[in-house]
Amino acid sequence: MGLKGNCIAAQSGGPTAVINSAVCGVAHEAMEQADIENIYGAVNGILGVLNEEIMDFGQEQKAVIDGLLHTPSAALGSCRYKLKKIDQSRKEYERILEVFKAHNIRYSFYSGGNDSMDTADKINNLARETGYELRVIGIAKTIDNDLAETDHCPGYGSVIKYNAVTVMEAGRDTESLYTTDTATVVEVMGRNAGWIAAGTALARREEGDAPHLIYMPEAAFSINGFVEDCREVLGKYGRISIVAGEGLKDENGQYLTFQSGDFAKDSFGHQQLGGVAEFLKTVVEQKINVKCRYIKLGTCQRNAMHFGSKTDRDEAYMCGREAVKQAVAGTSGYMVGLKRVSNDPYSSEPALAKLDEVANGEKPVPREWINDRGNFPTEEFIDYARPLIQGEVELPIVDGLPQYVRFKKVLLEKKCPQKKYG
Amino acid sequence: MGLKGNCIAAQSGGPTAVINSAVCGVAHEAMEQADIENIYGAVNGILGVLNEEIMDFGQEQKAVIDGLLHTPSAALGSCRYKLKKIDQSRKEYERILEVFKAHNIRYSFYSGGNDSMDTADKINNLARETGYELRVIGIAKTIDNDLAETDHCPGYGSVIKYNAVTVMEAGRDTESLYTTDTATVVEVMGRNAGWIAAGTALARREEGDAPHLIYMPEAAFSINGFVEDCREVLGKYGRISIVAGEGLKDENGQYLTFQSGDFAKDSFGHQQLGGVAEFLKTVVEQKINVKCRYIKLGTCQRNAMHFGSKTDRDEAYMCGREAVKQAVAGTSGYMVGLKRVSNDPYSSEPALAKLDEVANGEKPVPREWINDRGNFPTEEFIDYARPLIQGEVELPIVDGLPQYVRFKKVLLEKKCPQKKYG
Repeated sequence: MGLKGNCIAAQSGGPTAVINSAVCGVAHEAMEQADIENIYGAVNGILGVLNEEIMDFGQEQKAVIDGLLHTPSAALGSCRYKLKKIDQSRKEYERILEVFKAHNIRYSFYSGGNDSMDTADKINNLARETGYELRVIGIAKTIDNDLAETDHCPGYGSVIKYNAVTVMEAGRDTESLYTTDTATVVEVMGRNAGWIAAGTALARREEGDAPHLIYMPEAAFSINGFVEDCREVLGKYGRISIVAGEGLKDENGQYLTFQSGDFAKDSFGHQQLGGVAEFLKTVVEQKINVKCRYIKLGTCQRNAMHFGSKTDRDEAYMCGREAVKQAVAGTSGYMVGLKRVSNDPYSSEPALAKLDEVANGEKPVPREWINDRGNFPTEEFIDYARPLIQGEVELPIVDGLPQYVRFKKVLLEKKCPQKKYG
Repeated sequence: MGLKGNCIAAQSGGPTAVINSAVCGVAHEAMEQADIENIYGAVNGILGVLNEEIMDFGQEQKAVIDGLLHTPSAALGSCRYKLKKIDQSRKEYERILEVFKAHNIRYSFYSGGNDSMDTADKINNLARETGYELRVIGIAKTIDNDLAETDHCPGYGSVIKYNAVTVMEAGRDTESLYTTDTATVVEVMGRNAGWIAAGTALARREEGDAPHLIYMPEAAFSINGFVEDCREVLGKYGRISIVAGEGLKDENGQYLTFQSGDFAKDSFGHQQLGGVAEFLKTVVEQKINVKCRYIKLGTCQRNAMHFGSKTDRDEAYMCGREAVKQAVAGTSGYMVGLKRVSNDPYSSEPALAKLDEVANGEKPVPREWINDRGNFPTEEFIDYARPLIQGEVELPIVDGLPQYVRFKKVLLEKKCPQKKYG
């Protein structure tokens, strides 16, 4: 209690539509807290700390800080730098504390997924061990929605809202042109978790609406089953709208590639994640004998604030504010996530989880939330997901396009011996 | 003048975000015209006429007809059925007139691109030859924006507005993660025309903003030039945001494939249009040695009414209304397109063009609207395109997603001998 000093915010991993909304919450709350003097930002996540590239919010216009609320992607810059285990790389952790000490940073707020929570946990432990008073709070972030110890993750609602409208609109295309362009595959993100793929089910309101089939990595993918599913849907609706998670695996736990099943043709060489749409398109064309288009949304889906979820945005902001409140009140070593208080009407509140429990957890879509055929989520999932896409984010529009903000990033003078990481 | 009878609307080819807005304009105007009795719709374009699958707007709810204004894709259904030349397939054209006569159709409104205008022209000529009084009006439609005799095409403004915001948002992703995910390619539609690719230039407001490089089929694509461009941009900004038209061709006029240049590896077998993003990603990774992501928007871009252009939507509606006014006033054999009256402030009005001139024309991006390096459109193009994305379409939202309408499609009783086309 009563710890006076500076705070730092950092963003890590793949950006989301609302990761800046969380930072906006941190900044707004920190400005109101007397214990917090300056608000800093690590440029490109933990790399910014290691390289002592730290920007000062005090040098930024208020309009830019406020504009973070509706600006997608990581305005501070992010990174994919993964610290090794502390016994293999104690020096890096010590370097972080050295930089924190040099700038009297006493509060650290880290938006990220489970790797980031692991890093935050280790920094917290090292600070405690070495007697440097520091409060470390994580803020849940991942579009994949696979973090343990939180009902859902800020970032998830926006990605599924955008993906659902995309599947709805592309579905209308297939519906109007089914006489020739009969099938469409939309590939979405989510790695080994099917939460994002499942979320596109929200696009379906009426019998026949897209999507007809949704494949999630939690259910083993069978080419024969897929071909059967497609035949059935084609017979029923005359068209096929398919959604596939990028991380689909076959019955042997292998990622789908052109080596799978009958498609072991050496004219195709893709083995990385992300070739799923093209693979399924090929299966549909060869086995069902109808033309199949495919859409690979890639990174646009996780930054699509132009159709972001207001619920998601507001929750991210709330988590950012809560992180600061908790830290000032003395909490350290926890992540702020979300607890669902009620589903109808929907309400949520911030919830704390221990960093090490989040770091080591992982939350796939429960198998019972996927139907027996493994080709669509259940109503239980839909009840869970629907509240998360409610409300639209009002954006300032200039010349027909959103006006997103960008930091000037005026860096603090370096005080530590120069090193180069990353 | 004073021709009493029924009218029919038909939609052809790839749908757009506003092709239904044009049909809404047709329906609203036709309801106000005393000469027009019933309003019909051909189900799946010209196939619906040939197969006598014709729906009656009179059986549809007013809210559905009004809702066409904001509903993307072709609500009547579309097709890719191309009629042969009249001397090779006179029977098909006669069949169309037979169906028209059976239902006393005296007004035909056809939304489409140049193939459709060709069909419309031939129907018009045959009607005149055979003494059947019929008024045929085309309504300009194509996202590709390559129709001759019109300043721009309804559908174009919406696709570039959505693609621009997508490139802007994906660009923010690349900006935040440049330390590892350094380059991104976004592949857009447009076939042999670069209008859609060029339109993403509107996303760039400040030095360094995405997109950095835009490749259009009108400028021959050179792999060496591309690699040089990428190196330069990487040196300047530390990241690369690339937009590529799906129909890029090399110096020999060949579509880009993995057979091009040094990439003639038989582990890649893609030759169809649409492999451009993956191809360029491979070039960037092999030649520039940075990680490159890619996005293939596919059909979602042409139906993205969730971020449609109000200007575009209003112009499409205006063209639909104008088509009916012209037909009732006695015009036949023309397409309704758009004339730009003023650029600043922007205003436009409907403009007539002869169907046969549209049918045989094609409008690429003028080479002088592309810079010398062939990697970005000029300011002249930007001045042309910017007005077309102004304004947002207000959508009714239910449960976080747009409420689009769908016809019941109650078909007229068949009066002609059954035949099966398509």
